Amino acid sequence: MNAKKKFDHSNDLVFLPLGGTGEIGMNCYCYGVGPADDRQWLMVDLGVKFGEETDPGIDVILPDVGFIASDKANLHGIVLTHAHEDHLGAVAWLWPQLQCPVYCTPFAAQILALKLKEAGLDEEVPVKVIPVGSKFTAGPFHLEYISVTHSIPEPTALLIKTKQGTVLHSGDWKIDRTPVLGQGMDEKRLRAIGDEGVDVLVCDSTNVLREGFSPSEAQVADTIAAIVAEAKGRVAVTTFASHVDRISTAVRAARATGREVVIAGRAMRNTIEAARACGMLKDSGRLLDEEEFGYLPPDKVMLLCTGSQGEPRAAIARIAEDQHPHVSLDPGDLVLFSSKTIPGNEKEVSRVLNNLARLDIDVITGEDALVHSSGHPRQDELKLLYDWVRPRALIPMHGEPRHLRAHAIFARKHGIEDVVIPRDGHITKLMPGPLRQIDEAHFGRLHVDGRLIVPSEDGPAKQRRKLSFVGIILVSVAVNSKQDLAADIEVVTDGLPHGLQDGLQEAAEKAFEGTPKPRRRDVNVLGETIRTSVRRHADQIWGKKPIVKVVVHEV
Amino acid sequence: MNAKKKFDHSNDLVFLPLGGTGEIGMNCYCYGVGPADDRQWLMVDLGVKFGEETDPGIDVILPDVGFIASDKANLHGIVLTHAHEDHLGAVAWLWPQLQCPVYCTPFAAQILALKLKEAGLDEEVPVKVIPVGSKFTAGPFHLEYISVTHSIPEPTALLIKTKQGTVLHSGDWKIDRTPVLGQGMDEKRLRAIGDEGVDVLVCDSTNVLREGFSPSEAQVADTIAAIVAEAKGRVAVTTFASHVDRISTAVRAARATGREVVIAGRAMRNTIEAARACGMLKDSGRLLDEEEFGYLPPDKVMLLCTGSQGEPRAAIARIAEDQHPHVSLDPGDLVLFSSKTIPGNEKEVSRVLNNLARLDIDVITGEDALVHSSGHPRQDELKLLYDWVRPRALIPMHGEPRHLRAHAIFARKHGIEDVVIPRDGHITKLMPGPLRQIDEAHFGRLHVDGRLIVPSEDGPAKQRRKLSFVGIILVSVAVNSKQDLAADIEVVTDGLPHGLQDGLQEAAEKAFEGTPKPRRRDVNVLGETIRTSVRRHADQIWGKKPIVKVVVHEV
Repeated sequence: MNAKKKFDHSNDLVFLPLGGTGEIGMNCYCYGVGPADDRQWLMVDLGVKFGEETDPGIDVILPDVGFIASDKANLHGIVLTHAHEDHLGAVAWLWPQLQCPVYCTPFAAQILALKLKEAGLDEEVPVKVIPVGSKFTAGPFHLEYISVTHSIPEPTALLIKTKQGTVLHSGDWKIDRTPVLGQGMDEKRLRAIGDEGVDVLVCDSTNVLREGFSPSEAQVADTIAAIVAEAKGRVAVTTFASHVDRISTAVRAARATGREVVIAGRAMRNTIEAARACGMLKDSGRLLDEEEFGYLPPDKVMLLCTGSQGEPRAAIARIAEDQHPHVSLDPGDLVLFSSKTIPGNEKEVSRVLNNLARLDIDVITGEDALVHSSGHPRQDELKLLYDWVRPRALIPMHGEPRHLRAHAIFARKHGIEDVVIPRDGHITKLMPGPLRQIDEAHFGRLHVDGRLIVPSEDGPAKQRRKLSFVGIILVSVAVNSKQDLAADIEVVTDGLPHGLQDGLQEAAEKAFEGTPKPRRRDVNVLGETIRTSVRRHADQIWGKKPIVKVVVHEV
Repeated sequence: MNAKKKFDHSNDLVFLPLGGTGEIGMNCYCYGVGPADDRQWLMVDLGVKFGEETDPGIDVILPDVGFIASDKANLHGIVLTHAHEDHLGAVAWLWPQLQCPVYCTPFAAQILALKLKEAGLDEEVPVKVIPVGSKFTAGPFHLEYISVTHSIPEPTALLIKTKQGTVLHSGDWKIDRTPVLGQGMDEKRLRAIGDEGVDVLVCDSTNVLREGFSPSEAQVADTIAAIVAEAKGRVAVTTFASHVDRISTAVRAARATGREVVIAGRAMRNTIEAARACGMLKDSGRLLDEEEFGYLPPDKVMLLCTGSQGEPRAAIARIAEDQHPHVSLDPGDLVLFSSKTIPGNEKEVSRVLNNLARLDIDVITGEDALVHSSGHPRQDELKLLYDWVRPRALIPMHGEPRHLRAHAIFARKHGIEDVVIPRDGHITKLMPGPLRQIDEAHFGRLHVDGRLIVPSEDGPAKQRRKLSFVGIILVSVAVNSKQDLAADIEVVTDGLPHGLQDGLQEAAEKAFEGTPKPRRRDVNVLGETIRTSVRRHADQIWGKKPIVKVVVHEV
């Protein structure tokens, strides 16, 4: 914590992102007030990012919150803006390090409860349920959840008032004036807080490269209703499991055409239960289980399922491979991808689309018709929010570096001159005076590997990535007290081409024989001689240098 | 070859794709005539596909041509339609199995020569250089290269005449009426062969999902010229290394604004040399080496470089990381991505774009301006070719299954009723009578792993993929004649989280001790007991089951 002491900024309001400003996902933003050596912290959002192929065996990535955890007595709460995984998903993993109250809306509380229960933390974590539109306080932070529109129930922007100044933290949002569920965007309140004065807007940058205004959920609903009304055979709709608005839209399209609705996918079932517990989807009637799908006439059924990102174990992927235990589709049936492909998932989605094509099943995606609309603001929506809130300064968040840079250029072009592009770990002074980076904090990522949390840098995933390119050779040698072999040298390989075995064995034996007896006494020398020789042989034949480990038993 | 004998189709003309009808890349199409047990073959194109993350350590994938190789006395030639890797790249790898003449145009011959030389085959392979527009004969196949337009010099469609019937194999093509290099699309000849009669059109499906007509290379050239004319600082243009038209376009834009042109990237240098050897790029002047970049004023230089697909070792990726030995860019300099992102490369390209954003460098891609146009036909171009050629039947090729299906639907809608969607390994009878699948041939893929060609199924890449998820544990035991340990048990791990080591060691020791002496005599039983026990321990702590290999030395 030495870093904190470099400056005296006792009257500062500072901003410290620990995730979410350099890549999509894993959102974690900290606000601090007070003297640098006794800063009081508030954390906004604590999300995960999903693993990529470059980190093999890693499904979930967490922000390293060690910097805040080491000062946890000064952490007054974690406030969740909404229930998406990239904003809420890390709480159950990291709360034990942070040990503070968690504030969230009723719907987010339902989703969080499932995760805490799974982690055995449901009795421990003090979850404070705050209705959308309410004010609350966490230490020196006076907070207010302001209703916005997004692609999940109860999305909020967070107004953060401190004696040092006022920040509007936008969360994920768009301006949808005809949403199908929820309270809608609270334009009135946003204008009012603009009148009251906002120093800094910390703002979603995801869609800043897109011109214009996002289509409304109501337009999407009209399109889906029209498509379902025309369908002659079975209809399957796949969307994000958490997108309750879209689930509601699909169910209404089904009901309007006399179709029963079958749900496939545990995550979607969980969402529906959470929504119903919060009073949503009350009029959607009975939703059937996948076992019932096969008994319904093709024109009397809609399947609502997970897998819109091509996840290989999700319902639609298995249906496309004709491997689902209860659901199968026939030529001429229709699958609606009511989703967008998140960058990085293109290949997986493509695989599902190709499998459906092989089964001669019709597919409609967001590229063919308005069956999806993003939950993030395009340029005209950003301009409107700027107009309502009139912030003195802006920090772009949520996005890759190119989005953050484009947002900075865009904001300056639209009259907000004080803009700083944040980087994870940078401590930016928001108030008083202009935005300025004043310090740095440790940040990083953690991998969830099996059931363990492990470091991402030089961790096991990195070792495994190396293994995945070059494979491994184990050589085991038993040497007796005369420095002779006590048994045959054993060579075991994994991930190598066939046909190398004999040569490797020979290389190991030659290396042993070529080592003079006195030198064999030094197990390290002997091991290294064999290792080098075996590795060189593999390289000569194969053109790759595998990992070689040598064990020497002295018997 | 038993499969061939099932039917008697002695008068058939058949089509057998061994790659290119189920995925993008790795094109390899075979045409056969004569009796089923003595079919005479022609191979059209023999390309590679690049490895994906799902095949770790594999850069290049080849079609398995074993079915044809086993009958190579009846193979009369390999005809290459153009010089792209996915049409030509496998020749140097697979020719030793096929041992037949290779027919190609002068430019393709230049590109092929480099590869054959690298493989030490340049003296062996009989390469027959055929000018675009010429007729030639390979066994019973009467052939003609017809000039088309595409994104590489000398692209051709191949007219295949046999006594059984006539096929037009389209190769990769678009209709560009104002190309910047080359002979252009030979509309006259295509109309003439339509008049002469074409039985089957085997046709590019890559862009069938896109409406309208592709922009011309001349429009792209105008856009690039205008952008370069306005640029104040350095300009870097990255495009496909083989896209000589685009290289010519960029060089002309540079010359028009008094900029020197610096080339970075070996593949692009090779292309330029090949083009010059064929009389192209003669007026492009001196092209400088990357060492000279730093000495030129920012407004007097254009860098032309590789890396448009985000390849991490290519020039633009290293420049974006500020790691290039000779080239660096400053804020306000401009990078033009004169390319499209090939599906699957989105993440890699994104990484480069983000790194450039971090350096505050401006970027223009095909999403911002018409700085690239695809080399494949959109719907209106397909319709024109149908009109010119008037085939009786059509086989869609080049594309994923969803493109092939969409092309089949599109062709039927436009009056070609006899359409069959091919699958790799299916033998389709083209003539006489309607298209019909009559047989199947063995097909598959081969991996280039280091310098070896290995099987893709159950090959080393699959083993390594498993390693990459779960890691490996190697246990080595030395047992003496009394069935006691002759030395400590050694446990070596790779790709496992820290902190497991002691527990694994203990599990191995307990398993040994828990095995009664008589049972220790059976090395397999002892090994399996230890393996199971160690694996179970890892699973209990970690939640994953690593690969465990046990070596037992009897000393």
